[in-house]
Amino acid sequence: MIFQYFQSNSESVTNGICALLALASVKMYSSFDFHCPCLAKYNMAYGLGIMFIPPVALFLCGLIVNRQFVVMLEEWKRPTGDRKKNLAIIRYMCSSVLQRAMIAPVVWILVTLLDGKCFVCAFSSSVDPDKFPGFVTNITPYNEVQRLLSKVPCKDDELIRNNTSRKAVSRYLKCWSQAFGWSVLLTLIVIAFLARSLRPCFNQATFLQTRYWSNYIDIEQKIFDETCCEHTRDFAHKCILHFFESMQKEIKRRRFHAHPGKEE
Amino acid sequence: MIFQYFQSNSESVTNGICALLALASVKMYSSFDFHCPCLAKYNMAYGLGIMFIPPVALFLCGLIVNRQFVVMLEEWKRPTGDRKKNLAIIRYMCSSVLQRAMIAPVVWILVTLLDGKCFVCAFSSSVDPDKFPGFVTNITPYNEVQRLLSKVPCKDDELIRNNTSRKAVSRYLKCWSQAFGWSVLLTLIVIAFLARSLRPCFNQATFLQTRYWSNYIDIEQKIFDETCCEHTRDFAHKCILHFFESMQKEIKRRRFHAHPGKEE
Amino acid sequence: MIFQYFQSNSESVTNGICALLALASVKMYSSFDFHCPCLAKYNMAYGLGIMFIPPVALFLCGLIVNRQFVVMLEEWKRPTGDRKKNLAIIRYMCSSVLQRAMIAPVVWILVTLLDGKCFVCAFSSSVDPDKFPGFVTNITPYNEVQRLLSKVPCKDDELIRNNTSRKAVSRYLKCWSQAFGWSVLLTLIVIAFLARSLRPCFNQATFLQTRYWSNYIDIEQKIFDETCCEHTRDFAHKCILHFFESMQKEIKRRRFHAHPGKEE
Repeated sequence: MIFQYFQSNSESVTNGICALLALASVKMYSSFDFHCPCLAKYNMAYGLGIMFIPPVALFLCGLIVNRQFVVMLEEWKRPTGDRKKNLAIIRYMCSSVLQRAMIAPVVWILVTLLDGKCFVCAFSSSVDPDKFPGFVTNITPYNEVQRLLSKVPCKDDELIRNNTSRKAVSRYLKCWSQAFGWSVLLTLIVIAFLARSLRPCFNQATFLQTRYWSNYIDIEQKIFDETCCEHTRDFAHKCILHFFESMQKEIKRRRFHAHPGKEE
Repeated sequence: MIFQYFQSNSESVTNGICALLALASVKMYSSFDFHCPCLAKYNMAYGLGIMFIPPVALFLCGLIVNRQFVVMLEEWKRPTGDRKKNLAIIRYMCSSVLQRAMIAPVVWILVTLLDGKCFVCAFSSSVDPDKFPGFVTNITPYNEVQRLLSKVPCKDDELIRNNTSRKAVSRYLKCWSQAFGWSVLLTLIVIAFLARSLRPCFNQATFLQTRYWSNYIDIEQKIFDETCCEHTRDFAHKCILHFFESMQKEIKRRRFHAHPGKEE
Repeated sequence: MIFQYFQSNSESVTNGICALLALASVKMYSSFDFHCPCLAKYNMAYGLGIMFIPPVALFLCGLIVNRQFVVMLEEWKRPTGDRKKNLAIIRYMCSSVLQRAMIAPVVWILVTLLDGKCFVCAFSSSVDPDKFPGFVTNITPYNEVQRLLSKVPCKDDELIRNNTSRKAVSRYLKCWSQAFGWSVLLTLIVIAFLARSLRPCFNQATFLQTRYWSNYIDIEQKIFDETCCEHTRDFAHKCILHFFESMQKEIKRRRFHAHPGKEE
């Protein structure tokens, strides 16, 4: 019931779902138990994996949950009848679906960047250790330096616990992570702003028309489903009444012929 | 009453039940007290048991709770009357029931994998100890290494408490567990996405017809039940009225014949 | 649904959104994990970045979220019909939109200034160390002094932990930061007070007229959208009823010709 309510396609409801998905992604990230492996080989894969695999999953979820996505596909594949297919409508629906599906993944990536843990885990081995005097002595061999750097995200590790510059390296990486996060956020907001403010400057009338037809397709499907249900119900009702009537006739017939006096 | 409400088969309600079962499985896992035995022989069995036995139970629950499952079985076994049996309808109902029953078990498995505790318990003995310098010295005998590895999930254990690399092993396993979890999740979402997006591309008309008839079968049963109830009520009403009437007749008859003056 | 409710343009609702955005900015700042890099080169950029990039983002968000902004653009770009375009109305809407979009960024800047962490991070290198006797000895080279100053915001850093004057420098900067914050706040309040108290002294009548027309434009759009929806629904309903009717005719026709007696 809740799911179907969510799948009804008035724009505001769809917006609500996207907001919920975005909130869920934040909630998931904060409840997620992040364990950097702190092994030079796995760090990068794990950090980037946590950063980019869930967004792919969330993106596909955003498409699956959005009723308009299926409506769009059906409109695209339907046999052409009296109503001509209009590519502009399909394009409009497609862009609207994609935009909404992008929200949750983008929120996930931004949250990971602003939090910085994944970034520290992924790139701690790529830091130039010479920037941090006191992190390693000059005589430390290259291999050992790499191992030390890969341990930076694990503050409880034996090897790194007493290293005075561990925090400095971690702070440096977190600061870069946040800088990336904010610049991505800013870019996205600027794009959204431009899209919203430039749209009314171009052909507004055709846009309104496209929106009208996209609404029409959606509502046509819904009313078709409802009418199907009613039709089923009527049909089943008739069949069952018919069954009971014929049963009663059968009973009456039996009463007269087989045991004419027994039941009365 | 709540149970019957849950068993009414409008698709959205069934979806709601599945969502509830999935939530329940998450809740169950988080309230479940996981105690790894930390004995080489039992670790694997315990870990994999917690990972795969509850999903079987949840799968069966998903079938029990779903009204459509019984409807499907009845449709399959009913004598062929005027309405021909259509295998496509049974297949459609079967796949819909299975899909919904799979949700809760899959959620359980994903939650255990993303949490990682079960995985660490099950596979801690299978880790190659040479990857973690400092976990064991070279002279430790094989048996002892196995015992140490099987103690990894129990951080308070006497033997392992002072081992500096215990955390590294645990971290390594958790990272693999999460990697498995995310890849399973991603695969499932991709499959769901493909299923949803490819369906409209193939014969949509027959799909709609199948759905219409699957709805019909469901509603026919419900209306049959309701009509049966009404019919029973009517019949019982008539019988009881008849009984009271005949009783009153009996009383009147007795009044006149047996004790004509006694009661007046 | 919530989103659409927020986008309805009664003034009080718009005020509500702005208040929410402002609250969100405060909440975001307090939940934000501020990690000053404590490296001379990055400090200024990071501190000022946190202070001024989020406000830009919030300002653009304030424009995106405000429905009046799009209404204004559409009014500006619409083809002139029977109703003449009035620049005063557009100017009135523009100023109202800008005012509301300014609230959240101003709140963010004030909060950062009153909190002081960003300011300390940004300007710790610019402090004259001679003001704080005991911070450095006279023989310390210039480079080293700069490094020490850049470490002031990180109180756990090895280099600065035992420095007795670190707190004094930090306190000095925080005090300046708060002074700036309070003076900005005071200036803004004075401007708001003057704007509000001087407006009734000038042409109040034309102001009321402008406001009337700005409301009209907004409500015209909303009623257009609603009427579109109703129209779509009516149209779809008619089409589907027509489809079912023609289907039933088809069924009846088939009954008579192909299997005249079988279904009856």
